[in-house]
Amino acid sequence: MVNFCSQCGSTMTQNIPLRDNRLRFNCSNCDYIHYENPKIVVGTLPVYKTNLGEDLVLLCKRNIEPRLGYWTLPAGFLENGESILDGAIRETYEETMANVSNLNLYCIFNVIHANQIHIFFRSEMTDKIFSTTDESSEVALFSFGDIPWDELAFPTVHKALTNFKSDYKSGNFTLEMSDINKDYWFTMNKK
Amino acid sequence: MVNFCSQCGSTMTQNIPLRDNRLRFNCSNCDYIHYENPKIVVGTLPVYKTNLGEDLVLLCKRNIEPRLGYWTLPAGFLENGESILDGAIRETYEETMANVSNLNLYCIFNVIHANQIHIFFRSEMTDKIFSTTDESSEVALFSFGDIPWDELAFPTVHKALTNFKSDYKSGNFTLEMSDINKDYWFTMNKK
Repeated sequence: MVNFCSQCGSTMTQNIPLRDNRLRFNCSNCDYIHYENPKIVVGTLPVYKTNLGEDLVLLCKRNIEPRLGYWTLPAGFLENGESILDGAIRETYEETMANVSNLNLYCIFNVIHANQIHIFFRSEMTDKIFSTTDESSEVALFSFGDIPWDELAFPTVHKALTNFKSDYKSGNFTLEMSDINKDYWFTMNKK
Repeated sequence: MVNFCSQCGSTMTQNIPLRDNRLRFNCSNCDYIHYENPKIVVGTLPVYKTNLGEDLVLLCKRNIEPRLGYWTLPAGFLENGESILDGAIRETYEETMANVSNLNLYCIFNVIHANQIHIFFRSEMTDKIFSTTDESSEVALFSFGDIPWDELAFPTVHKALTNFKSDYKSGNFTLEMSDINKDYWFTMNKK
């Protein structure tokens, strides 16, 4: 909801601007149009290879709303002035203190009901350094068998991890672009 | 620039909110934070196959600013409530009246200086139907040799077409993700 014009402070109204076909918030005083567009969420699926050759996935437990207390892949809103790659690396570091490299574009999810596009990269942890942060009350490495599937924060995180587990078995990692619907939790077959 | 709070109309100030590390526009009255994030531009590279088997590319001449009078691939801002695929199809239709199908994700460009992410799909025109629109003063099919390389509207359009021309020769179309810098026009080797 946009009540007041960010430019001149006058009251906003909703109408379809000239040469447009959608309702927008408009200023009746200065004609400023307030556009609202989808936001991009970027994150990584960090993988740590143990000395024994086992691949573990780094997850963090959310210390903030929404979904406080649930496990997630490190991810967050892309900021102005950065690439999706740099944003994903930054978010990973901010939420887990882990440094990741060798990023590969892995999932692009349209989360239409939330007006968001979620983009995940597979990534490699070069060392075992990570820790809790303001945003994460726990940060831990999981083998596939131990991933807390029923305590994941977001459908896109669940789908990215499900794809990864499946691709890992086949050894063939393929980029997925798909829509994640509001009823994902209810229709999916968990695991 | 955000002068007034969109929620309560009070004057905005800039500071770093609690648990954040970036300057944001904040309302001193109601504490509303105005976040600004990159916008997504989606478009297609529409290809029409002639009876003789030649592949032609559909371009449109911009009838609106910025870059009025320059040629572009049909593209525009992703809207709330749509996937990047649907947005690309919609923009193609709005700018050229062409219907495209069989979309393949082809380019993801970080246009960092403009706070935009440009996403292009290769696509197929199933018929030769297209026309001028409010946004396009001309719409036309071009063979690779005839593409007006020196009259293209945007660096990302130039790069997408350059990649396509090159990939077409090799027959191997690969997704590219890269940064397109402010000095693209000056540093590139046109064609």
